[in-house]
Amino acid sequence: MPGRYKQITKKVGLPPGTLLHIGSTRSEKVKIRMLCYSSEHWNEKEFDKVDELLENKSITDKCWIHISGVHVVSMIEKIGAAFHIHSLVLEDIVNTNQRPKMEDNKEYLYIIVKMIHCYDNKNIDFEQVSLIVGSNYILSFQENDNDTFEKIRERMKSTTGKIRSKGVDYLAYALLDCIVDNYYVALEYLGDKIEVLENKIIVHPQPKVLKEIHTLKNEMLFVRKAVWPLREIINVLSRGDSVLFTKDTLIYIRDVYDHMIQVIDSIEMYRDMVTGMLDLYLSNVSFKTNEVMKVLTIIATIFIPLTFIVGLYGMNFKYMPELEWKWGYPAILIIMAFISGCMIVYFRRKKWM
Amino acid sequence: MPGRYKQITKKVGLPPGTLLHIGSTRSEKVKIRMLCYSSEHWNEKEFDKVDELLENKSITDKCWIHISGVHVVSMIEKIGAAFHIHSLVLEDIVNTNQRPKMEDNKEYLYIIVKMIHCYDNKNIDFEQVSLIVGSNYILSFQENDNDTFEKIRERMKSTTGKIRSKGVDYLAYALLDCIVDNYYVALEYLGDKIEVLENKIIVHPQPKVLKEIHTLKNEMLFVRKAVWPLREIINVLSRGDSVLFTKDTLIYIRDVYDHMIQVIDSIEMYRDMVTGMLDLYLSNVSFKTNEVMKVLTIIATIFIPLTFIVGLYGMNFKYMPELEWKWGYPAILIIMAFISGCMIVYFRRKKWM
Amino acid sequence: MPGRYKQITKKVGLPPGTLLHIGSTRSEKVKIRMLCYSSEHWNEKEFDKVDELLENKSITDKCWIHISGVHVVSMIEKIGAAFHIHSLVLEDIVNTNQRPKMEDNKEYLYIIVKMIHCYDNKNIDFEQVSLIVGSNYILSFQENDNDTFEKIRERMKSTTGKIRSKGVDYLAYALLDCIVDNYYVALEYLGDKIEVLENKIIVHPQPKVLKEIHTLKNEMLFVRKAVWPLREIINVLSRGDSVLFTKDTLIYIRDVYDHMIQVIDSIEMYRDMVTGMLDLYLSNVSFKTNEVMKVLTIIATIFIPLTFIVGLYGMNFKYMPELEWKWGYPAILIIMAFISGCMIVYFRRKKWM
Amino acid sequence: MPGRYKQITKKVGLPPGTLLHIGSTRSEKVKIRMLCYSSEHWNEKEFDKVDELLENKSITDKCWIHISGVHVVSMIEKIGAAFHIHSLVLEDIVNTNQRPKMEDNKEYLYIIVKMIHCYDNKNIDFEQVSLIVGSNYILSFQENDNDTFEKIRERMKSTTGKIRSKGVDYLAYALLDCIVDNYYVALEYLGDKIEVLENKIIVHPQPKVLKEIHTLKNEMLFVRKAVWPLREIINVLSRGDSVLFTKDTLIYIRDVYDHMIQVIDSIEMYRDMVTGMLDLYLSNVSFKTNEVMKVLTIIATIFIPLTFIVGLYGMNFKYMPELEWKWGYPAILIIMAFISGCMIVYFRRKKWM
Amino acid sequence: MPGRYKQITKKVGLPPGTLLHIGSTRSEKVKIRMLCYSSEHWNEKEFDKVDELLENKSITDKCWIHISGVHVVSMIEKIGAAFHIHSLVLEDIVNTNQRPKMEDNKEYLYIIVKMIHCYDNKNIDFEQVSLIVGSNYILSFQENDNDTFEKIRERMKSTTGKIRSKGVDYLAYALLDCIVDNYYVALEYLGDKIEVLENKIIVHPQPKVLKEIHTLKNEMLFVRKAVWPLREIINVLSRGDSVLFTKDTLIYIRDVYDHMIQVIDSIEMYRDMVTGMLDLYLSNVSFKTNEVMKVLTIIATIFIPLTFIVGLYGMNFKYMPELEWKWGYPAILIIMAFISGCMIVYFRRKKWM
Repeated sequence: MPGRYKQITKKVGLPPGTLLHIGSTRSEKVKIRMLCYSSEHWNEKEFDKVDELLENKSITDKCWIHISGVHVVSMIEKIGAAFHIHSLVLEDIVNTNQRPKMEDNKEYLYIIVKMIHCYDNKNIDFEQVSLIVGSNYILSFQENDNDTFEKIRERMKSTTGKIRSKGVDYLAYALLDCIVDNYYVALEYLGDKIEVLENKIIVHPQPKVLKEIHTLKNEMLFVRKAVWPLREIINVLSRGDSVLFTKDTLIYIRDVYDHMIQVIDSIEMYRDMVTGMLDLYLSNVSFKTNEVMKVLTIIATIFIPLTFIVGLYGMNFKYMPELEWKWGYPAILIIMAFISGCMIVYFRRKKWM
Repeated sequence: MPGRYKQITKKVGLPPGTLLHIGSTRSEKVKIRMLCYSSEHWNEKEFDKVDELLENKSITDKCWIHISGVHVVSMIEKIGAAFHIHSLVLEDIVNTNQRPKMEDNKEYLYIIVKMIHCYDNKNIDFEQVSLIVGSNYILSFQENDNDTFEKIRERMKSTTGKIRSKGVDYLAYALLDCIVDNYYVALEYLGDKIEVLENKIIVHPQPKVLKEIHTLKNEMLFVRKAVWPLREIINVLSRGDSVLFTKDTLIYIRDVYDHMIQVIDSIEMYRDMVTGMLDLYLSNVSFKTNEVMKVLTIIATIFIPLTFIVGLYGMNFKYMPELEWKWGYPAILIIMAFISGCMIVYFRRKKWM
Repeated sequence: MPGRYKQITKKVGLPPGTLLHIGSTRSEKVKIRMLCYSSEHWNEKEFDKVDELLENKSITDKCWIHISGVHVVSMIEKIGAAFHIHSLVLEDIVNTNQRPKMEDNKEYLYIIVKMIHCYDNKNIDFEQVSLIVGSNYILSFQENDNDTFEKIRERMKSTTGKIRSKGVDYLAYALLDCIVDNYYVALEYLGDKIEVLENKIIVHPQPKVLKEIHTLKNEMLFVRKAVWPLREIINVLSRGDSVLFTKDTLIYIRDVYDHMIQVIDSIEMYRDMVTGMLDLYLSNVSFKTNEVMKVLTIIATIFIPLTFIVGLYGMNFKYMPELEWKWGYPAILIIMAFISGCMIVYFRRKKWM
Repeated sequence: MPGRYKQITKKVGLPPGTLLHIGSTRSEKVKIRMLCYSSEHWNEKEFDKVDELLENKSITDKCWIHISGVHVVSMIEKIGAAFHIHSLVLEDIVNTNQRPKMEDNKEYLYIIVKMIHCYDNKNIDFEQVSLIVGSNYILSFQENDNDTFEKIRERMKSTTGKIRSKGVDYLAYALLDCIVDNYYVALEYLGDKIEVLENKIIVHPQPKVLKEIHTLKNEMLFVRKAVWPLREIINVLSRGDSVLFTKDTLIYIRDVYDHMIQVIDSIEMYRDMVTGMLDLYLSNVSFKTNEVMKVLTIIATIFIPLTFIVGLYGMNFKYMPELEWKWGYPAILIIMAFISGCMIVYFRRKKWM
Repeated sequence: MPGRYKQITKKVGLPPGTLLHIGSTRSEKVKIRMLCYSSEHWNEKEFDKVDELLENKSITDKCWIHISGVHVVSMIEKIGAAFHIHSLVLEDIVNTNQRPKMEDNKEYLYIIVKMIHCYDNKNIDFEQVSLIVGSNYILSFQENDNDTFEKIRERMKSTTGKIRSKGVDYLAYALLDCIVDNYYVALEYLGDKIEVLENKIIVHPQPKVLKEIHTLKNEMLFVRKAVWPLREIINVLSRGDSVLFTKDTLIYIRDVYDHMIQVIDSIEMYRDMVTGMLDLYLSNVSFKTNEVMKVLTIIATIFIPLTFIVGLYGMNFKYMPELEWKWGYPAILIIMAFISGCMIVYFRRKKWM
């Protein structure tokens, strides 16, 4: 992730508004999906080229145009021209390393958010989603072509939902809600990892665990960085300053805001928990090592006086009366047994064993 | 607790207002208690079905309807329809994983709080309580059927209390006050645990204690997360923006606010104390281990030169004059006693023993 | 101190305004001291019963009524009725576990503060003082009967002081100033303890010191908790929102405010210093232990090769030519002396000794 | 860097507005580059003396005068006089140890920023850039003569760019944007260092690494100190309080502001990561040392009883029946093998090996 | 420094406005320097008594009266009476333990600041300076008689400076600027100490260094406490609320404010650096100790099996065939050399040596 800035540095000194794709290199075809809808009818089309899109654009209906892939800069440029979008906004769309932000350009609202994907609860991935919300159209840009928004498209196909009868601001809410819902999946992923790591720490603390804690901490830093700014964005939205969002939709936006607060609360709590885990791990490791060392040192301590005694009677002095005694050997064995017994009792009493 | 998000992720992509119970699965019957009252008379009924409730609803009196159990989504839906409650609010009521919050929908005030239960001072449990405060009715939703609000019902039965003569806003205050009073029980529980742990740390520091500190820290994180947002809610209430709360009741709300501040102050102080305990534990453990190691090492150090000496006279050189001396053996014993005596004196003086 | 919440939990579910003494149980008699004064005359009386007080109450003069002891709930109730004090305020007065706070009830100002006592620089104690400041009277409630306010009474007896000629707001200032002055005594107590502990750490670091640091830290937490909210209270007072405080007195209140800031600054600085002390202690202990271990290990290391050599010539092989040499024994002694000399030189050079 | 204050202390007691160059001593010649431009024509000249500049100054065109080198105080003084610049501003320009700041003197805007250079990804360097933005001129002062702004000059030479047609406020934006773009290079440098260090910590933790972490931390502190204040400056600029900046340019300024937020976010995240690295390093080191000690202690523990046994049969007692047995020697060998086998099994089972 | 509160506690219970000198006891004579000046003429006089000052006070000119020494309370009282200064202000002037603060009493502005002196870069000292800025006079009070403001007096003697032509507000600025400039000297002192300590830590980490870090940390705490409040004071001044400060002077005040920000920034950065140093020291010490222990343990480990072997052949069994072999002794020497060789190779490969 830190490596990403290498790409940004390519832009140093270029004039503003220069479109330059920043992100992992891709070669897939860019797909354009247009969904024109009103409460009565709806109409979905898929294009490969921007020109086809522009020809087919309906003017009367509400329209959701979704572009999967922002790596073909020329396409973004054409769309930008057709919808009168400021070149700085286009620059941000193709730069997938943006911080979540919102800009109110009067005619349209421009929102950048980070989508978080979790694959098989194994790893976590970030994707930039840009929304341009106009009076009767929404442009959404995504890095990849995945089925995140599929459920929303399905809800739109069924005639019963509110989503068809309400304006595009409600659709914008639905998209944001869908993205925030995905944050819960990330929270679940992080929560699972914390539980697994806590078990590992208690059962078998190893340096590998430490690296996993370190990785988890960094993942949390990235999630936090992606999620935190969105809170402020949705807060501003919910205050209803933009004329594009009707009062009716604001209730729903406030609901998303509550979710955001909850997500951020949980991340902060997780951070505290991980910090606690690190302490737990470190003292568990040091405790275990200390225990081992203590036991081994005690064994050595018991044998040291004994070894001294047997050395004593291994001396070759000519005049050592004990050596001549008949019961000298068994006596010394009993004495040594007694000494080691005393030491064990002493250590036990001191709670060293 | 982190596992709870698994349930929320089921909601990803569903339209807003979809009622889906989130929380531990339950099978008990849902109980509905209706309490209509005025300063002159009062009237308590219990129902199993929503329809019975709606038939019996009095219009003129003040009314407190308490629903124990939010896992039967259809009942919540019916009540919602009867009282014209927004679908997003209903969604929050059945999602027992909400953050405490308040919403002023003009016609009614919607408040979510967390009740904390302590069972036998052994463990701590959280329960979501949702209040809907209308002009002359209160709806309260609880996850379980327990007797937390029993005392309030009893106070209402006696004619002397203010609670009968005042409006439903005073009843709302009484319910919040009751919930906040329960926080003191949680504080007592945490305070007791801290005292017990501090004793353990001083008397017999063990790794088990460390795990208990870790658990206590996490419990505090959860209590904090449940309690903290309520402060802001009650602060907003006490400012008197809502028309549903009379000026007279605001004095009481401010009293609850003071209690909240005190609860939060104590939690923050407890956190500092627990952090201090961890330091105390860690250094106590390391001090004890070091003491053991030091004593053992000193024993070893005293015997090492002695063992060398006895080894010296165990050598088989042909010409070792000392071995032939008559007083060689006792002389060497005295020398060794002298050496070890010197070392003990030296170690004592250096304060190593 | 954490045990105090046990008493609060007795109140769970009781209606608001129920008077219940919370604090350490006492049996002393409650004393009531009335001091009526104007710039011309003054008049001090002492009563045992509230009725006597009410009979003797002067209406024209300024009046300071001081009650020592809040554990006789019925007396507080009577006084409250006579002075038209809200039942919630009375509840707070008898609950000695309140957070410092201020309430402006238009007719009177209600202030709770914590007095800190230091006995012989040995231990620290907290006492709740409640002030009710009316237009021409002050009610002050204290847990114990001690001579904290004696100096103020003496100042009032002398005719020269401003305190007689000015209103009761000036008297309220004098009481607050006296309480804040006592905080400096607490600061002195804490500062002395820090100095003593720092000396102990440098001269003779022991685990006992660690416990003392821990106790000191907790004492600071309690002092901080007692002092911190008063800052905001005096800040609000000094802004002059209350009509009961004249503009003339506000200058003095601002002076108390400056003192509060200084007290809080010092507490924060003390906390930083104590944290630094903990670090100093821990590394001093570990340094000393390490030094001991190092010296002992070096002794062992010097003797280990020597013990090997003497063992070598203690072997019973038939054909060991060295054993037969005439100068074998002295030669081996010289060799061993040489080896240990080399090792000592090497260790010295490496700065290990 | 801390040594820099030595130079500032030379100024103690001097009257304000005294020009005194503070920074590393230089002897290169100061270069003055004047670039007069409008959308139709442009004109670049280079001077050595201020007088030449003043003679050639065009009045009608927009003008960018760039001075490389602020160590010749007399030149700065002359320029200041010609452009009516306040003496305090001139004092700040020659004092290269300023904190980034902005001042709106109505007639001109005065901005100090820090440029960060990275040489070959090896080390990082700071340089002060001062901008004076008037109604139709920009004065820029730089400590060195490097080619940082070369790209902007080139963009101006080409007729196509917006930079020629727009006012000097747009040029000011371009300069700030160029400086902020350089911060990304610094981020890349820091990110690379973090990655390299993380690898080193995992593969081969050495005390050298610790010093590198320490250096990296300090570098981050300096970058942070240089970057942080610029955020507020650009925020103030983007609010559009200054009449010198047109509404049209503000969109671009806000874009720079977004970049600043991103830069600061990243620095904060890097700091968290480095703190995590330190923990990782310390526990890795202690783990490795502990492992070594444990293995060695285990070896010693296995041999200690064996050494005791061989010492036992090295005693010279006259009556030791075992010594006479024929199979005594092989028996004792087998017993010792058995004992050491048992110990190894035991240690394995306890997971100590 | 903590001991200072002992003196404050003497004031407990005294009426406000009681002048009581708090600070180190002094016996030097108090000097009064009066400097009357206008742009045309100036006039400096020195007095020992307040009465002389009052007789000589010019009414038409701007006047700077500097009192060196605040320990003679009666003099301060007289001056206070002559200039109509509030008794609380006088109380603060003689109490040299004040927190920096500013009070606007309409007729005069009262400012308390802390001067920091560094003697020979060895130790640091604090001195309280109080300024009373009237419409055409300045009173300045200092604890000692040193030459800090000498440079300002010299600037006033020369006719060229702005300081003579401008009002007393400019003089007040000059005094504040002089005090803030002295903070840079303190920064230099702290920066030097950090550099010296960092060197010591890397070259020869000793427990003495730890105590020096601890002292440095505490010094920083005191500097921070003295400097921090001044920032807010100068900020308020620069906002221009006081009528005593002309708009022209505010530009200079803002310059001082910038310096203050820079000073505080540096102190915060130094604190971070010192914290980093502590970590560096602790891990350096533990690394060095660990290295020693490891080497010594390795030596012991190599000799332990060898000592076992020589013990083995020191046994006195009758039937030990090896002892009879002719090449037994050289064979066992070779075997032992081989074993120790293997161990050394193994340890080398494991990077333990």
